Amino acid sequence: MRGEGEFGLIARLTERLRSAGRSPTRAPVHFGLGDDAAVTAPAGVTVTSTDALVEGIHFRREWSPPASIGRKALAAALSDLAAMGSEPGEAYVALGIPEDFDEAACLELYDGIAAVAVDTGTAVLGGDLTRSPVLMLAVTVVGHAASPEAVVGRDGASPGEAVAVTGELGGAAAGLLLLERPDLRRSLDARMADELVGRQLEPAPRIAAGSALASAGATAMIDVSDGLGADASQVAAASGVRVTVELERLPAQPGVLDVAAAAAVDPADLTSAGGEDYELLVVLPAARVRTAAAAVRSTGSGLTVVGETGPGEGVELRGRDGSIRPPAGFVHLPAR
Amino acid sequence: MRGEGEFGLIARLTERLRSAGRSPTRAPVHFGLGDDAAVTAPAGVTVTSTDALVEGIHFRREWSPPASIGRKALAAALSDLAAMGSEPGEAYVALGIPEDFDEAACLELYDGIAAVAVDTGTAVLGGDLTRSPVLMLAVTVVGHAASPEAVVGRDGASPGEAVAVTGELGGAAAGLLLLERPDLRRSLDARMADELVGRQLEPAPRIAAGSALASAGATAMIDVSDGLGADASQVAAASGVRVTVELERLPAQPGVLDVAAAAAVDPADLTSAGGEDYELLVVLPAARVRTAAAAVRSTGSGLTVVGETGPGEGVELRGRDGSIRPPAGFVHLPAR
Repeated sequence: MRGEGEFGLIARLTERLRSAGRSPTRAPVHFGLGDDAAVTAPAGVTVTSTDALVEGIHFRREWSPPASIGRKALAAALSDLAAMGSEPGEAYVALGIPEDFDEAACLELYDGIAAVAVDTGTAVLGGDLTRSPVLMLAVTVVGHAASPEAVVGRDGASPGEAVAVTGELGGAAAGLLLLERPDLRRSLDARMADELVGRQLEPAPRIAAGSALASAGATAMIDVSDGLGADASQVAAASGVRVTVELERLPAQPGVLDVAAAAAVDPADLTSAGGEDYELLVVLPAARVRTAAAAVRSTGSGLTVVGETGPGEGVELRGRDGSIRPPAGFVHLPAR
Repeated sequence: MRGEGEFGLIARLTERLRSAGRSPTRAPVHFGLGDDAAVTAPAGVTVTSTDALVEGIHFRREWSPPASIGRKALAAALSDLAAMGSEPGEAYVALGIPEDFDEAACLELYDGIAAVAVDTGTAVLGGDLTRSPVLMLAVTVVGHAASPEAVVGRDGASPGEAVAVTGELGGAAAGLLLLERPDLRRSLDARMADELVGRQLEPAPRIAAGSALASAGATAMIDVSDGLGADASQVAAASGVRVTVELERLPAQPGVLDVAAAAAVDPADLTSAGGEDYELLVVLPAARVRTAAAAVRSTGSGLTVVGETGPGEGVELRGRDGSIRPPAGFVHLPAR
């Protein structure tokens, strides 16, 4: 318990992040890594979110190399900023390290964090290291916006608006199925299988799309982390509207239907309840959809209208046959 | 894994924090709990730090009731802001919850967090909940200061300055000994023993003292979390000075010497290496000591000069007999 282990590792990780973090932070930094706290001078408003990932719950070390775990941790945290339409600025990483996760693995994990930081213009300014029985990461991200009005919450949707999603859904859940049951890989070609697995292990936050949607008039937005139905329920509750989604309109990532067929599961379980795709679910006036879709397309993603808001509460997921299913999603804690 | 457990618990914890959090945050809040991220409009500079506490490493549930764990988690995080001389503003709490930690325990833990939040004027604006094999908390705190110059780092000390500590040391380590060996309680009166144990389980961040020291001309500051010797080493390295501490000048909390005698340990092990007292170690020009001591006294604490800085590097802890010991402290990771 006593030794220079912790301080030495902190110094090496700090160096790793410094050398990777060429991208400037959006707020001037006065003190960064290596003091009790980081000091920045933000302009406008700050947008702050915390996300924790725990081994065995959010990832398995036998499936995810350390760099993927680092990537996913920062990406998942930044996804919450994307869902506010905010630009990423700084990140703070608390890391719990088990006995069998050695220094080389820690450095690899930080390489993954640093890669996403560079891609997104995020400066990693601080953190904490501790021993832990399992690997765990808690990442706090701070984003910036010009004004409170430029930030999109969950609570601004009105009845009669369009409900849309960016990109494609179900890939992360299909990738998880492929990891759990390697025999399912026989149902699709290897490259497509790798892409689904990559979607599960190394998701990308939709920062540019979120920013484009905020500018295009989004009234409410959330990232698809717990499953589209569950996440839509959050928007419905916060905005005081009813959200109706047509399941057949959900854009499935290529290969998702093949995996669903091979695993004998309803594809809607993957697209509407799988979660972890980190796409954005957005509500916006119907008149803004065309402009918004063009803006999202310019970021390299798509935008698909999947339903609408109405008066009332809750979420209705409608099947092709008119059947209605309750919104389900991945929930990290069992109901007690 | 699927159910309303997580969302229901989040709603109840949010309500708990809202009803406790009457104290205003120092930055205007536009969105708080219940969205993807919190939106605030800070003035001046922000000071941000993250601290993780893991069951079995930083606390044991058989010793700490849930409220104490919550108190310690927020207090330990805020202590880093105190060490910058910064005023606390907002906090974000990631919580990993094991199977056997029920909802009532979660609510108690949040009551502890809320109590420290109210005491210190901190607004808890967000967080994350997840399952976890052991109880773990990662707390990110954001403080505010008028300008970068008003914030005290670790790196501003010069040779020839005074080194001082607030309050009294060794109490948290003595309290830990009493928890580990209840037979030692026979060596001192019950009230004093309870105070030592309280120091271990529910430390208080020295926010007012830190702010007073920043105003009084502190050139470097750090909180005594890992042990005075280890923490002094951080200041020495960051500032490029040598720190000399006279062990006999370290102010021991009442009862610490009794516990050390009963446990047959060197009292200096408790005062200089025990850590977790969350007092402040401060460097300041000798000419400022009198003013600084008066300012700290007005916050209800003491300030004791325990050494000085000189040219060179590292830390020297001098015993009464002229012996010199290496700086030791609690380190959470073994040297590999």
